[in-house]
Amino acid sequence: MKIVEMRVTPIAIADPPLLNVAGLHAPYALRNVIELVSEDGIVGAAEAHGGERLRSALEEAKADVIGRSAWDLARLAEVIEQRFTAAPREALRVSGAIEVAALDLVGKAIGVPVAELLGGRVRDEVPFSAYLFYKLAGGGGEGDDQREDRYGEALDPAGMVRQAQAFIADYGFESIKLKGGVFPPDQEIAAIRALHEALGPGTPLRIDPNGGWTTETSIRVGRDLNGILEYLEDPTNTMAGMSATRGALLADGNAMPLATNMVVTAFDHIHEAVLTDAVQVILADHHYWGGLRAITQLGRLAQTHGIGLSMHSNSHLGLSLLAMVHVAAATPHLTYASDTHYPWQDASDEIIEGGRVPIVDGKIAVPTCPGLGANLDQDALARGRERYDRCPYRERDDRTPMRERVDPNWEFKLARW
Amino acid sequence: MKIVEMRVTPIAIADPPLLNVAGLHAPYALRNVIELVSEDGIVGAAEAHGGERLRSALEEAKADVIGRSAWDLARLAEVIEQRFTAAPREALRVSGAIEVAALDLVGKAIGVPVAELLGGRVRDEVPFSAYLFYKLAGGGGEGDDQREDRYGEALDPAGMVRQAQAFIADYGFESIKLKGGVFPPDQEIAAIRALHEALGPGTPLRIDPNGGWTTETSIRVGRDLNGILEYLEDPTNTMAGMSATRGALLADGNAMPLATNMVVTAFDHIHEAVLTDAVQVILADHHYWGGLRAITQLGRLAQTHGIGLSMHSNSHLGLSLLAMVHVAAATPHLTYASDTHYPWQDASDEIIEGGRVPIVDGKIAVPTCPGLGANLDQDALARGRERYDRCPYRERDDRTPMRERVDPNWEFKLARW
Repeated sequence: MKIVEMRVTPIAIADPPLLNVAGLHAPYALRNVIELVSEDGIVGAAEAHGGERLRSALEEAKADVIGRSAWDLARLAEVIEQRFTAAPREALRVSGAIEVAALDLVGKAIGVPVAELLGGRVRDEVPFSAYLFYKLAGGGGEGDDQREDRYGEALDPAGMVRQAQAFIADYGFESIKLKGGVFPPDQEIAAIRALHEALGPGTPLRIDPNGGWTTETSIRVGRDLNGILEYLEDPTNTMAGMSATRGALLADGNAMPLATNMVVTAFDHIHEAVLTDAVQVILADHHYWGGLRAITQLGRLAQTHGIGLSMHSNSHLGLSLLAMVHVAAATPHLTYASDTHYPWQDASDEIIEGGRVPIVDGKIAVPTCPGLGANLDQDALARGRERYDRCPYRERDDRTPMRERVDPNWEFKLARW
Repeated sequence: MKIVEMRVTPIAIADPPLLNVAGLHAPYALRNVIELVSEDGIVGAAEAHGGERLRSALEEAKADVIGRSAWDLARLAEVIEQRFTAAPREALRVSGAIEVAALDLVGKAIGVPVAELLGGRVRDEVPFSAYLFYKLAGGGGEGDDQREDRYGEALDPAGMVRQAQAFIADYGFESIKLKGGVFPPDQEIAAIRALHEALGPGTPLRIDPNGGWTTETSIRVGRDLNGILEYLEDPTNTMAGMSATRGALLADGNAMPLATNMVVTAFDHIHEAVLTDAVQVILADHHYWGGLRAITQLGRLAQTHGIGLSMHSNSHLGLSLLAMVHVAAATPHLTYASDTHYPWQDASDEIIEGGRVPIVDGKIAVPTCPGLGANLDQDALARGRERYDRCPYRERDDRTPMRERVDPNWEFKLARW
C-alpha cells in the first residue's frame, strides 16, 4: 500500500473569544490537514496542530513518506525522529499526524475501522466532558466572517452555570471541565461551587488553571474543593510542585487526583512522575505523544502504575475528534470522560463530508465504517484554506488578542496566583 | 473476518535431557497448537504452552472465539479475562495464544505480515542468543523415537565450552546464555569464566540460575563476574532480593544489569520493580504477557523506565519463534538478543511447511510474507499429536526425570545456594 502523494493544507477555523492562562483565543484557530494518497488512489487524512512551523516540518517530512508503505509506521517514526533530532517534540507531532492519516488510509483500503487496527474496540461509544471557558461576548471569526455566538459572555459564576447548562442541553455532557487560570483562584472556586450547586453532586467537575497557581495556592484550592472536584488539573506547572501538592493533600487524607497535560507530556516524563507521585491522571493527546498507537501504549503504562487516563484537546475539527474516538475505543484503561473543544467550533467550518460528528448524551459513537469513518469534504477544506490565507497570523498567539480586547498591559505569567 | 472454527491440538516434541533448577527436561516437551479458521477458509495458527490444563482452558474459550471477528481482540481479551477470573495468568495465556493466531489469520487474509499489523518493523532481522544447558548425554524422545544427540554431555566448564562452540558453529550466535542453578555457584562461575576465555571478551555472556541463589550468593556472583556478564538473570527469586542485590552491586560501582522473567512476569509487577530498582532487563514472553500487542506495550514501558528488554523462551517450535520474530521486529526498544530453545528441538518435529526456521549469524530474518510467514504442515501436526497420545505425562514435570535419571532423592528448591 504505497503512498504516492502527501498533501498538507493549512486551514483556519473560527474560534470564539475564550480566556485562558495564555490570554484570549484569537478569532481563528489554525490547523494543518494531512492527506496521504495511495498508489490506488485511496486517501487517508488527519488533522494536526496549526501554524507554519509544523506545516514546514510536515512538508519536509514528505521526503520520508512518499514511496513508503502506509503500514511502515514504526520505521517512519524513527526516520522522522532522526530528521528532526534538534526538535524531538516536533518530530512526534509530525510522525503522529502522519500515522493517523496512514491508519485512515489503511483502514479504508482494507475496509476496517481504525479502532480495529489498534487492537480492537472495548467500547462502542466514548464519553466526553463539557469544556467550559471564561468567555467574552461574541462568536469566532471576524469582519464579514463573524459567527453567531450561541453561548454569550461568561465571566462570573452565574455566567459559567448558564454556559454549563447550555452545553448540557446541547450535548448531554455528564462531566464538566472549567478552564481556569483566568481570574484569582477564589473567583474560580466560586464558579466551581456554583456549578456543583446548580448541577448537583452527581456531575463530575474539574478545573484546569494550566499551571496558573503556586504550589501553596494549589494546596489551598485542593483543600477547599475536596469532595467537589473529580480531579484537579495542572494547578501548578512543575513536577515538584505537583508532587508537593499531592503530598500535602494526601497528608490531609484528601486523595483528590491531580491530572496533567503540562508536566507529563511525553514518555520521558513518566518515570519521574511515578517516582514522585506527581500525577494521578494523564491527559493523553495523540497529536503530541506520537500518534494513536503511542496512546494505546500510554494507556497500558498508566494502568500499570495505577494512573488514570483521560484525553486532552486543542481547538479542532472532526478528523481529530474521530481519531480520539478510535483510540479511546481501543484503550481499555480510559478512566475518565475526555476533553474536547469541538462544541466551540462552528459547524460551517467542518471539513468532513456530512458535517459535524454528533455528540449525544455526552458521548460519540465509535464509527464502524472503514478508517476514521469520514471523508474529507474538499470544498470545505478549500474554504478553510482561504480563511487561512486571509488570516493575519501564522502561529497560535493568545497574548495579542488579550492585549487588544482586555488589557493592553497584560503579560503571560505562570503561577500568577 | 469472522472466525468459524477453532482447533486446539496438543502435541509432544522430543526434548533432550537438559538440566535446570526444576530438574531435568523430560524426553518430550508439550505444546498446544491453536488454529483459527475464517468464514472464507483462511487459517491462522499459533503455539501455546503445553499441557491439559491450558488445553482445556483453550477449549473452553472457543465459546468466546467462534463467531467473533479476528480483529476484535481487545474485547476478546476482556471476555476471556472475565471467563477465567479465578486464574488471571491462565486467561493471559489463552487470550495471548488466540491473539497470535488471529493476527496470523488477519495477516494472511489481507496479505500483510504480522509485524506490520503490530505497527511496522524497525528491523529486518532479529538477533537470538545461544541457550546453553547443563546436559546429560543423549537426544530427546525415547524408545524407538529416541533422537540423535548433536551436542553430547555437558556437565563441566569444558563441556560447556564445547556446547557453545557447537552452537556457534551451527547457528552463528553472537550472545551466549547459560542456564544455571544446577551446580553450586562456583562451578557455574567457572563455566562462565571458561566461556569468557574461550570465546573472548567480545561475546556477551549471561547466566540464569532461575532464582537458585540466595541474595547473598547473588551479590557474591555479581561481584565475581563483574565485567564478564552482559546481565545476570534471576539470580534470586524475590523482588526484594533482586533489589537488594542491585543495591549492593551499585554500591560497589558495579552496574551489571539484573534481568528477570521470574519476579516481573506481568504488568502488575512492574510498578514495584520500578520503585525498588529490582530489575534492569525484562525478558518478555508473549505466551504469558497476553500476546504480541502486549509485548509492544511492554517495550514502551521498559523504554520509559530505562529498563532493557529481551525475550524469554520455553521449548518451542517455529510458530512461536516466528511470533517472537515479528513482535521483536515491531518493538523498537528490544535491547538484547533474545532467548530461544529452538536449536534443542529436532527438525523432524517441526510443524510448519518447509521445515525449520533458519538461524544464520545468530539472527532470524523477519518474514515479509503474510501473517507469521508460515503455514501449518498438517501431517507433521498429526505426528506431533500421535507423540502426545503416546506420551505418559500431561503437564511439564522436570522433577520425575531428575529423580529417575540423576538422584532419586532430588527435591526442588529455590535459593538452594
